[in-house]
Amino acid sequence: MDKSFILNKTSPRSSARRGQLLTAHGQVETPVFCPVGSQATVKTLTPEDLKSVNVNMILSNTYHLYLRPGIPVVKEMGGLHKFMNWDGVILTDSGGYQIFSLANLRKLDEGGVSFRSHIDGSTRYITPEDAVSFQQDLGSDIAMVLDECPHSEASENEVLAAMERTHQWAKRCLAAHTLKSQHLFAIVQGGLSPVLRQQSAEYLASLDFPGYALGGLSLGEPKDITFETVRHTLRFLPENKPRYLMGVGAPEDLLEGVSCGVDIFDCVLPTRVARNGAFFSRLGRLNIRNASFATQKGPVDPECNCYTCRNYSAAYLHHLFRCEEILAYRLATIHNIAFLSNLMQEVRTSIEKDCFEEFKGDFLTRYQPTNE
Amino acid sequence: MDKSFILNKTSPRSSARRGQLLTAHGQVETPVFCPVGSQATVKTLTPEDLKSVNVNMILSNTYHLYLRPGIPVVKEMGGLHKFMNWDGVILTDSGGYQIFSLANLRKLDEGGVSFRSHIDGSTRYITPEDAVSFQQDLGSDIAMVLDECPHSEASENEVLAAMERTHQWAKRCLAAHTLKSQHLFAIVQGGLSPVLRQQSAEYLASLDFPGYALGGLSLGEPKDITFETVRHTLRFLPENKPRYLMGVGAPEDLLEGVSCGVDIFDCVLPTRVARNGAFFSRLGRLNIRNASFATQKGPVDPECNCYTCRNYSAAYLHHLFRCEEILAYRLATIHNIAFLSNLMQEVRTSIEKDCFEEFKGDFLTRYQPTNE
Ligand SMILES: [Zn+2]
Ligand SMILES: [Zn+2]
Repeated sequence: MDKSFILNKTSPRSSARRGQLLTAHGQVETPVFCPVGSQATVKTLTPEDLKSVNVNMILSNTYHLYLRPGIPVVKEMGGLHKFMNWDGVILTDSGGYQIFSLANLRKLDEGGVSFRSHIDGSTRYITPEDAVSFQQDLGSDIAMVLDECPHSEASENEVLAAMERTHQWAKRCLAAHTLKSQHLFAIVQGGLSPVLRQQSAEYLASLDFPGYALGGLSLGEPKDITFETVRHTLRFLPENKPRYLMGVGAPEDLLEGVSCGVDIFDCVLPTRVARNGAFFSRLGRLNIRNASFATQKGPVDPECNCYTCRNYSAAYLHHLFRCEEILAYRLATIHNIAFLSNLMQEVRTSIEKDCFEEFKGDFLTRYQPTNE
Repeated sequence: MDKSFILNKTSPRSSARRGQLLTAHGQVETPVFCPVGSQATVKTLTPEDLKSVNVNMILSNTYHLYLRPGIPVVKEMGGLHKFMNWDGVILTDSGGYQIFSLANLRKLDEGGVSFRSHIDGSTRYITPEDAVSFQQDLGSDIAMVLDECPHSEASENEVLAAMERTHQWAKRCLAAHTLKSQHLFAIVQGGLSPVLRQQSAEYLASLDFPGYALGGLSLGEPKDITFETVRHTLRFLPENKPRYLMGVGAPEDLLEGVSCGVDIFDCVLPTRVARNGAFFSRLGRLNIRNASFATQKGPVDPECNCYTCRNYSAAYLHHLFRCEEILAYRLATIHNIAFLSNLMQEVRTSIEKDCFEEFKGDFLTRYQPTNE
């Protein structure tokens, strides 16, 4: 797997790109949105459910799998693909973000990071080399370096220190990485500072990774700042390598990210809000618990052709949510993933046809974003 | 729908029967076990999931649907089949059992029963005629009369009074029932008294219902008493009408019920215990949370060929249960329903081949029942 990416086209009127990600488990058309299956399952769905909504790439999480069931178990079971019965593409996050957001009592030293498990409080210590070794054992198609993600209120000095540590760790991860069938992506940090973002992108670009992620964004900062930072950072990354914006999944943000030149997105948002009864539609999110759906004979989203919308009335979905029936969560998740899957298909087609900017404009004219 | 049942054969060495239930939504091979979908969903499963494990008849519940979403809503949505997107057979329980077990502050008068909803405490009043009208609005294939189910510690006088009221109500239900495409079944009561059971069966038989249920059993009494009562009661019911034993679903009890001459069973047990991690197997129930499954590469039940056992290791199921992932509950439910579906298929074949008694003996030699 030398080559990780084919760039087919860049939109003449924005930075939107059409490409293909090349992996050991097949090719992925980009731009792409990846649903998240942190614990080796995209919540509520089987692999067949995912395929039925045209998903062929998902994200899983080293931190979660390290704690449960443990990396050796997944390795012994034949790797993550076999463990979860998924023959599509898997990208694993290194766990950096989770260690710095979920775990407790973090302590950094030159070697790595110690922390307490958010599940049982046990003390753990992992190094950048461990993060690579774990992901090699999982056998994911794309692995991420271990990074330090500064919290959103970090001082400039803290952001600088986190960036420098991320750079050292990236270099160590690259040196430790030996699995030829797996791509190892770097993670650009640098907070919201244009200077640090440029520095981080340029340094990591010099190490020639097969792909680059933008970390430390979408953590609550204003969205115009997020995308200004994305746009700025991408100028310093090689054009022929895939770019991955971590933690972004709202429809309007996907379109903005694409227009900046992002190829890959992941986010728990579409599946998480589904379990709360929020259904994406071309008009915005619809709350199925709303009384107006109680007797609606048609589907919740008349413009959708997913399994849920083809087979169930809004009234039935409303009833299932009111009764807290487990089937509700699955049917809502199928719809939201189908919605994003269709959206990204339309994005790809519009880039091919040189009309992505019009597509984005038309979509945003109708779509009422949720402030989240 | 004049005829409700064809009796093909009765086993020469037990009372086991092989037949067909005839309904407006197709024919059901008996003996049959029906999964329960009280709230218009068999918990965690879609209609396609049910069909994939060869289920073509389910039970739903008038009491639950009356409280949520309300009978008029289901009627307006085109009836229960359309509402839940199920084109197979539906039997609806009248709600009698739920009113006497779930609801609060029951008060009986000659007209009907008042009670407080277990959901919001609102006061409700329903009559036998209401119970019929509700089920006609739901459009189920088989409806049940409203009965009074005495609690398990009721005195003989209370049991007698409940039986007599059940008889009066059965007569009123029959008079109120007008939907030709729906069969209305009576419910035999009489507690554990052989005299009352005989009296109840004979009286209801004289009213010539298209089918008969045995209510008020499997409420915690010793199992030999349960089946002694079943065996005794069935002697006083017409042979050419289907017999339905309510609330029985453990594998060993299904076999015993079949040998008594029961044709239809329903129970929440297989789906409820699935969500607790109990998987049926030919050796008894297996608890997937047990540490011994943590690294088992094979399926939880090597003798099963269901979707779950074909596609997932016991280790993966163990992991999903440990993480409380929603997919766990669905995969376990599929297995347990498949297990009972296969068991009943084997039962039917063995009756046809005159070897049901051997099949039952062989099964019970290996199967270790759970005391529940
Ligand atoms: Zn849909
Ligand atoms: Zn199975």
